[in-house]
Amino acid sequence: MSECLPAPIAFAGSPIDRADHVRADPAAIAALLGRKAKVLCLDGLDPVLSDDGALVWRDLPTEASRGELVFLGLEGEGEHARGCFAEVPLNLPPGGPHAGPGGWNAMAVLDVGELAIYGAARALVSWHARHRFCAQCGAATVIAKGGWQRDCVSRTEASAQDDPNHCGASHFPRVDPVTIMTVEHEGCLLLGRQPRFPEGRYSALAGFVEPGETIEEAVARETFEEAGVRVRDVRYVISQPWPFPSSLMIGCHAFADDPAIVMDETEMEDVRWFTREEVAEALEARTRGENGRAFGAPPHTAVAHALLAWWLSRK
Amino acid sequence: MSECLPAPIAFAGSPIDRADHVRADPAAIAALLGRKAKVLCLDGLDPVLSDDGALVWRDLPTEASRGELVFLGLEGEGEHARGCFAEVPLNLPPGGPHAGPGGWNAMAVLDVGELAIYGAARALVSWHARHRFCAQCGAATVIAKGGWQRDCVSRTEASAQDDPNHCGASHFPRVDPVTIMTVEHEGCLLLGRQPRFPEGRYSALAGFVEPGETIEEAVARETFEEAGVRVRDVRYVISQPWPFPSSLMIGCHAFADDPAIVMDETEMEDVRWFTREEVAEALEARTRGENGRAFGAPPHTAVAHALLAWWLSRK
Ligand SMILES: [Zn+2]
Ligand SMILES: [Zn+2]
Repeated sequence: MSECLPAPIAFAGSPIDRADHVRADPAAIAALLGRKAKVLCLDGLDPVLSDDGALVWRDLPTEASRGELVFLGLEGEGEHARGCFAEVPLNLPPGGPHAGPGGWNAMAVLDVGELAIYGAARALVSWHARHRFCAQCGAATVIAKGGWQRDCVSRTEASAQDDPNHCGASHFPRVDPVTIMTVEHEGCLLLGRQPRFPEGRYSALAGFVEPGETIEEAVARETFEEAGVRVRDVRYVISQPWPFPSSLMIGCHAFADDPAIVMDETEMEDVRWFTREEVAEALEARTRGENGRAFGAPPHTAVAHALLAWWLSRK
Repeated sequence: MSECLPAPIAFAGSPIDRADHVRADPAAIAALLGRKAKVLCLDGLDPVLSDDGALVWRDLPTEASRGELVFLGLEGEGEHARGCFAEVPLNLPPGGPHAGPGGWNAMAVLDVGELAIYGAARALVSWHARHRFCAQCGAATVIAKGGWQRDCVSRTEASAQDDPNHCGASHFPRVDPVTIMTVEHEGCLLLGRQPRFPEGRYSALAGFVEPGETIEEAVARETFEEAGVRVRDVRYVISQPWPFPSSLMIGCHAFADDPAIVMDETEMEDVRWFTREEVAEALEARTRGENGRAFGAPPHTAVAHALLAWWLSRK
């Protein structure tokens, strides 16, 4: 990308090596666990933070683990490589799909690499906690491949292989692609606010990519559904992993020829066009933790913030 | 995109209006079903085709439906709009995650719009058939929102609301983002072959985006895992919905400075660099249904084919 983008975006840039080859090797995982593993301390799905705003880890095997352990990856090189794990909570953790106070606090205090480690761990652990049963047959599932898979128990019981009702399903951590887009008309930008937003906040329109559509088609459909605005010339700008609960934010830009808005009243509280000056002032105000005069910009950790900054930078 | 891309890519360009507002309105769906609905005829997950290679539909309500109906969208405008549906098979349809003979035949004979309708229907129906149970609690699920959601039965039973074990989970059709990438070094392209490929076939490397990584990070990780090659300057090129079972293919291009290959022996059968001339000749041969002299190019309906054509066109 030739234009200016804040890099890396929040939740990207993990320093941990995912070490894919270790996942499928139970002996390698057992060796890591017995030797020099560390487990991320979580409070539900929120991170436990030290006084100086860092992630807190506990050692294994000195402190025994009660739940399933997910292998996040390796820290360090060769002989000194240390296994990093996270533990799946025994009960369903509280909190909805959106980022709560613990998540926002993590974004405020953690450095780039630690935020990425936490985000991946949170998305994985949350997925395991919500997928203890097989969606295909209703039987229990067990962790597999170091936490990058869950297997239906009917697969793991040898006697079930001959059973015509044998399921055998494997399930994989889910990543939900979401399009989020700035739409431009004659130098103005289309932004909207949902009822759940903080006071004064406007952000880029967004929505999940559905089966059977391209990224560009999803951008066009969502913009028309939420704002009644038709777009052309959709282009990809930036992506972000967003662990609430496990989205892949796909940031795009598009143009509109007709600015007439027909808002979706069920999803949106307001949709408006903002001038370049209003967007610039709102981003500046956000660096002071304030809403701008025309609207409140999204926080710097949100991909929408990066999209607005990108749009301002490219002219 | 300024460069030449075959448009639209296979499985994109559906003429059906998804009519999001209808999904949440059971009365609107009931009215469509009672009046002028049509249901896509499927044989398992494969399309039933007419003699002239078109999708076959049956009328409702004259021919009663036994299974759950998924609302695909509206065909036609205003008063004349007709509801398009697909029926979830009562039993788990046979076939693995990859495209079988029925899928490849559909790609060979259906026109652009019909292939997109079939792809969306297949991905949705397949998801429903594999998600009759709640992954969170193991209870049964029922279809909701015209087939764009399944609800845990504990949510639909009013008495369960006071139960501490009340689950209340809603589940949504899954779309799995996959990165697929052409990697370039000194005018050559990195392609690989998996054991399951047809004889002589090489294609772009690919892999699922994981929780906690950007599109660009997924491209870099997969290229290093499968080929041992480090990449820089990843850029997005094109996307495609691929209904086997429900991927969002995200086509990217990247550069490599060091061409040394360390292949993943468990995933790949071969990984090699091909010259521009070899790629051009292989694409030409593919239009005649043949393998090229150096390798067999992927079929024109695959996003990998579009990536190769894009790479040749942009210099
Ligand atoms: Zn099962
Ligand atoms: Zn449930």
